[in-house]
Amino acid sequence: MNVGTEWLIDAFGCQAESLRDTDLLKSVCERIIHDLDLRVVGEPLWHKFAGAGGVTAIFLLTESHLSFHTYPEVGTATFNLYCCRERPRWEWEENLQASIGARQVTVREILRGQTAIDDTVALNSIIRIESEREGREL
Amino acid sequence: MNVGTEWLIDAFGCQAESLRDTDLLKSVCERIIHDLDLRVVGEPLWHKFAGAGGVTAIFLLTESHLSFHTYPEVGTATFNLYCCRERPRWEWEENLQASIGARQVTVREILRGQTAIDDTVALNSIIRIESEREGREL
Repeated sequence: MNVGTEWLIDAFGCQAESLRDTDLLKSVCERIIHDLDLRVVGEPLWHKFAGAGGVTAIFLLTESHLSFHTYPEVGTATFNLYCCRERPRWEWEENLQASIGARQVTVREILRGQTAIDDTVALNSIIRIESEREGREL
Repeated sequence: MNVGTEWLIDAFGCQAESLRDTDLLKSVCERIIHDLDLRVVGEPLWHKFAGAGGVTAIFLLTESHLSFHTYPEVGTATFNLYCCRERPRWEWEENLQASIGARQVTVREILRGQTAIDDTVALNSIIRIESEREGREL
């Protein structure tokens, strides 16, 4: 029996400074929560790693959880959104391009709680976002 | 570039009372953290849903995060363990059978942060645990 859907999102080629910007990352999470009408339980956990390190945050939701980890040194951010209530798919590609400058985004959608799982891992999309900023390398 | 390994574990046929037992579930998480030498950052988030509902917990780790959700009504528990530091694979099958009575456990291992992801979803194992308790149905 399916008990929820989990999206695993990996965003590449992001702006390093955005991946250390707690306020910016907060606004991304707030938008996800708002757009999908998610309900946060308690205080989210946030941690900013020292020096040039990234940021981690975890939200416990009535619907399950939202988390992310950023790796400024390689321009990568990874998100997990686990929902036990049916929710539409967020526009990760467009939104992460606009907010943290992602140039490539992969979204994997995985059904949780199914005993027959060989058909439950679906690669939803891999899109390559053509950068308009010349000279920037992935 | 690989930035971490995430294990997605779905356990089926668990004892409903175990999936509502916060102390028992705490001891399972403590064992995972101890066995894999993980480091918890801040206070973990816990939530017990009302009535016959399940339990959710999330640990922010130096290594990334550990979370679980239980669904006593269908005997299911799902765990996520995301580690950006190389860690051995925990013995989910044996440990979840012994602790929460799981009769079937699936473990998926997913590499995070790789742009070529079609080969990064590996179904590590599906094992069926033969119950010694007669008359118990999955």
